[in-house]
Amino acid sequence: MDHIKKYVEENKDRFLDELFGLLRIPSISSISDHKPDMYKCAEYWKEQILKAGADKAQVMETEGHPVVYGEKMVDPSAPTVLVYAHYDVMPVDPIELWNTKPFEPVVKDGKIWGRGADDDKGQGFMHAKAFELMLKTNSLPCNVKFMIEGEEEIGSPNLGKWLDQNKEMLKADIILVSDTSLLGKDDPSITTGLRGLAYVEVEVTGPSHDLHSGLFGGAVANPINILSKLIASLHDENNHITIPGFYDDVMDVDAAERAAMNKAPFSEEEYKKAIDVKEVWGEKGYTTLERTGIRPTLDVNGIWGGYIGEGAKTVLPAKAHAKISMRLVPNQEHNNIAELFAKHFEAIAPPHVKVKVKALHGGQGYVSPTDSPAYQAASKAMEDTFGKKPIPYRSGGSIPIISTFEEKLGIKSLLLGFGLESDAIHSPNENYPLEQFFKGIKTIPLFYKYFAELMKK
Amino acid sequence: MDHIKKYVEENKDRFLDELFGLLRIPSISSISDHKPDMYKCAEYWKEQILKAGADKAQVMETEGHPVVYGEKMVDPSAPTVLVYAHYDVMPVDPIELWNTKPFEPVVKDGKIWGRGADDDKGQGFMHAKAFELMLKTNSLPCNVKFMIEGEEEIGSPNLGKWLDQNKEMLKADIILVSDTSLLGKDDPSITTGLRGLAYVEVEVTGPSHDLHSGLFGGAVANPINILSKLIASLHDENNHITIPGFYDDVMDVDAAERAAMNKAPFSEEEYKKAIDVKEVWGEKGYTTLERTGIRPTLDVNGIWGGYIGEGAKTVLPAKAHAKISMRLVPNQEHNNIAELFAKHFEAIAPPHVKVKVKALHGGQGYVSPTDSPAYQAASKAMEDTFGKKPIPYRSGGSIPIISTFEEKLGIKSLLLGFGLESDAIHSPNENYPLEQFFKGIKTIPLFYKYFAELMKK
Repeated sequence: MDHIKKYVEENKDRFLDELFGLLRIPSISSISDHKPDMYKCAEYWKEQILKAGADKAQVMETEGHPVVYGEKMVDPSAPTVLVYAHYDVMPVDPIELWNTKPFEPVVKDGKIWGRGADDDKGQGFMHAKAFELMLKTNSLPCNVKFMIEGEEEIGSPNLGKWLDQNKEMLKADIILVSDTSLLGKDDPSITTGLRGLAYVEVEVTGPSHDLHSGLFGGAVANPINILSKLIASLHDENNHITIPGFYDDVMDVDAAERAAMNKAPFSEEEYKKAIDVKEVWGEKGYTTLERTGIRPTLDVNGIWGGYIGEGAKTVLPAKAHAKISMRLVPNQEHNNIAELFAKHFEAIAPPHVKVKVKALHGGQGYVSPTDSPAYQAASKAMEDTFGKKPIPYRSGGSIPIISTFEEKLGIKSLLLGFGLESDAIHSPNENYPLEQFFKGIKTIPLFYKYFAELMKK
Repeated sequence: MDHIKKYVEENKDRFLDELFGLLRIPSISSISDHKPDMYKCAEYWKEQILKAGADKAQVMETEGHPVVYGEKMVDPSAPTVLVYAHYDVMPVDPIELWNTKPFEPVVKDGKIWGRGADDDKGQGFMHAKAFELMLKTNSLPCNVKFMIEGEEEIGSPNLGKWLDQNKEMLKADIILVSDTSLLGKDDPSITTGLRGLAYVEVEVTGPSHDLHSGLFGGAVANPINILSKLIASLHDENNHITIPGFYDDVMDVDAAERAAMNKAPFSEEEYKKAIDVKEVWGEKGYTTLERTGIRPTLDVNGIWGGYIGEGAKTVLPAKAHAKISMRLVPNQEHNNIAELFAKHFEAIAPPHVKVKVKALHGGQGYVSPTDSPAYQAASKAMEDTFGKKPIPYRSGGSIPIISTFEEKLGIKSLLLGFGLESDAIHSPNENYPLEQFFKGIKTIPLFYKYFAELMKK
């Protein structure tokens, strides 16, 4: 491990400089004005892969934002690792809550601050630097392929087609992904499950135009009041979701696995303190870890309607809107769930309003095995750098494309993330501790080493 | 009536020009950036009153936006009419739904289009022009005082104090107000009742910062979902409001008055068609006219929280907000109702969230007599210009200051409005038909004539 430590020590400032170049590009995939930034960001990644020592790298068009592909073939008989990351980031609203500018990264208090610092520029870039390290220190035991996409935060709508078109090029033994979190800084873990996602937008229309709430209030259904009633009815008194058929495909997790899951280091008191809530919330009969790990959920991600400016306006608005997402567990099919939602929402809407439901994006859940060479290699690598064996852990998050990889390419993914819960991904003040960034760069070469060894057996 | 018709005919283009000057000033009282426009608008009114022939007029400071006062004393023994109007207007959002620019008035299809065209620049300005007409044609039989305020749309928070300070100056026999609507273009009516208003803003806080809805969703209460539940619970299955004590002070209206009220010309089919809704909505056991005329209501006027931009963002937001107003009937005290709301809202909030309720503004309801000289004079004047006796009618709207006038000055108000339901006040594309504007200018001098006559008896 000495060559690894030495190389990181000698190059750490440059590594950060190069990452900052990536962080400065506002590659927000969901906002169409940022289209030029997506290309700029893809080009930056391409150059970084080439500079690190790849045989080739290119920016490849899709119907949406481009994909960066690069490769280094060291030996046809060696195993091949396909690295997946994404260069797109979430929007930055509410901008006023940021303490620094989201696209002007800084290091402060031992952390990198900025949009994408963790998700997924910081985590993704660890792979570029680990790759460089292995090449420059003559210790790369596997062939490496990179596939860096620009639409992960909007549900990878065009990557499936690109995978279909490039199956041969993408052949690999494992897909390696750093886009998840650890249970804690000193509690190494490997994500073995992800939730799926069905994301919809609803529109409730009452009268054809905004009305005066004095002249019409009490005699015409108010679409905000109605939307509130509809949303309220989506959970029952036990916080079960009321959409008919919603739980039909949910796989039961047996008592033994639930018991194992609840042994993970977790303090409810610390959890509540970290986010400043008096009580946790959720589906009756499940613990917090189970609620995010093995149970599907429904959250309103945004709501708007009527007058939201300064002061008072007595309007009975024509429309109210909400963005609603459901996190799904393995075996729930996201298109089916979006359809069940739409059917139910339309069915429960009273005759006083019209409702429209639009599916925005979605993806399947995922479970990965713990007895594979990839898992074992990752476990040994982490044990070396953390001094502790990692715990397999099912995350509540979604990386919709992971199940698509298996479906389209027949390749499993290994989710080797180094993020922390406090990284505030998708939120103001996203950050990534320097310690995590450099620990990732040091752990990844060990994964390659053990993976090559285990694959030979 | 010939001198009235002749004077209007000869001066109508100038009347419109002068009104347009008023409409061009964006005097939005609720938005602090418009402070200079408030002064500009007050000065414009002062100049108009002076030009029309007042003895004096001045812009008077308050702790908020200024009040314009002017007067013409013709005879100490003649009755005195105190004209009330407001020069402030509502905000213009959603601006994208306007077909013309809100502060660039135009005449099209026989209507004046622009913010304030009806409410209350158009209606208020009829009094300036009727006053000019009576002076120039030597037919003013009463003393006239003008009091034009700039905070009506935000609940007149500073006018009460100004009334206290100027009681002597404001002595009058009747307060004359044009800030209401007719039942229909050819259905003259006089508003004999107004609803009160209690307007609050609520904030629901869940976690201390925005969270990733995948990592935390299902385990932490989502403030938008909770706010929706709270709002939904404010009405029961009969659309009664569930706030304890809310109906305690509501005066029952007897069967005879309800029967008379329901004889007003009203077609539910046309009403539904005009606003494009399939069904009317409201409190069980009451008709549409009763629901807006004699019953209190609760409407959400605005709601916001989480991500409301383009595309999808999987956030579990820290906060959700709503603006909620309650229309009150005579005898319900608005401060008391705002307090009942706050107490109830705080009581029903689950322990997972914190809630804050802020009272934004409010005012009392009002009922005026139909056997007074003022009502009789207005009725005769309207009968002359409409060819039909007007119907007394209780409106659902609120002019919070009207009950304050009675309380502070001991003077009743006569609500002689010429607006139409289709004027879209408070909404995009506010308009005021030329016919209504000129009919108002022609009716007002007849009111003065009959009022002076009836007061002599």
